[in-house]
Amino acid sequence: MLEAEGVDLAFVPAEGEMWPSPPEVRLRVGGSPAERLEGMHRPGHLDGVVTVVAKLLHLVGPSRAYFGQKDAQQLAVIRRMVDDLAFPNQIVACPTVREPDGLAVSSRNAYLSAPERQRAAVLYRALQAGRAAFLAGRRDPAAVEAAARALLEGQPGVEPDYVALVDAVSFEPAKQAEPGQVLAIAARVGRTRLIDNVIL
Amino acid sequence: MLEAEGVDLAFVPAEGEMWPSPPEVRLRVGGSPAERLEGMHRPGHLDGVVTVVAKLLHLVGPSRAYFGQKDAQQLAVIRRMVDDLAFPNQIVACPTVREPDGLAVSSRNAYLSAPERQRAAVLYRALQAGRAAFLAGRRDPAAVEAAARALLEGQPGVEPDYVALVDAVSFEPAKQAEPGQVLAIAARVGRTRLIDNVIL
Repeated sequence: MLEAEGVDLAFVPAEGEMWPSPPEVRLRVGGSPAERLEGMHRPGHLDGVVTVVAKLLHLVGPSRAYFGQKDAQQLAVIRRMVDDLAFPNQIVACPTVREPDGLAVSSRNAYLSAPERQRAAVLYRALQAGRAAFLAGRRDPAAVEAAARALLEGQPGVEPDYVALVDAVSFEPAKQAEPGQVLAIAARVGRTRLIDNVIL
Repeated sequence: MLEAEGVDLAFVPAEGEMWPSPPEVRLRVGGSPAERLEGMHRPGHLDGVVTVVAKLLHLVGPSRAYFGQKDAQQLAVIRRMVDDLAFPNQIVACPTVREPDGLAVSSRNAYLSAPERQRAAVLYRALQAGRAAFLAGRRDPAAVEAAARALLEGQPGVEPDYVALVDAVSFEPAKQAEPGQVLAIAARVGRTRLIDNVIL
């Protein structure tokens, strides 16, 4: 796969190579992002992300490092880390790649059974419904979220964790719906937790 | 002063330049060093040190960065940070510079009144007494520490925070006195808190 994409080198360290012993010095996300959405639903997860990304940036020393927009909060926290701590690397966001039915491509999709895989497409349809409400003139964040939530709740076997319209940088809840904000969803489809988002 | 030393460039950022807003992503020292000596007596201090040193290393990008042995635990924690997170910089320790009476040179010495300044020399005499006990054959850490503590306690106006023989890397208490370990002292002289150490 990498060869077909023209990749010259891949750095794929084993866990024991990255962490020969548990690190005593780690990075920690505080403030607003730590308390919202993924920060709230997966305690410690964002701390682990910034710690390993900091080490990878030091090891590889890239001019530019590319991260997927699908993990929008992870991307926002990495940008914040680079800014707060003056990492000399440029962070570049990559648009979410989608299957023909709209499901965001993710390594987790492999865990879905065939019926779950079909149901999972509701996440993107819900995001589109939320965005459509905004484009139709709704400016109340609750109305945009409700338009998305309605589709999720109409789909048996899909349990939403959250549907949230937030600022793209701080991830604080939107006070009024505005272009550039992130409409984010996390939902369980069977035992698999999926996340996705669109930008208004 | 810098010119006389042949310094070409000094990077002396103002606080507002380093931290235009409070950082949301910080470094944090866990495990053993966080719980001992300076980590215990100055909660949050070592976290602040590694956070600002990480940012300075990113901003300056030095091949080698030099830190004083006087702040032995800070030095150990910075080495651990560089190792844990694979910073591409080499950390070099600088021997402690001393006044003629043995007092370690420190910006804090300016806070001492003339009589306090005289008393402060007991820190280094105490460290030498501890090291002498080791060289005379004492291998019980408590005996080495007691030899140092006796001098401190004989000096009115000097209040020890701790006298501790520890491993130079982990800063865990020595089980048996051995060459290479750090004998560390913190003490208040009047209102000024001084630290110093010698290596066995």
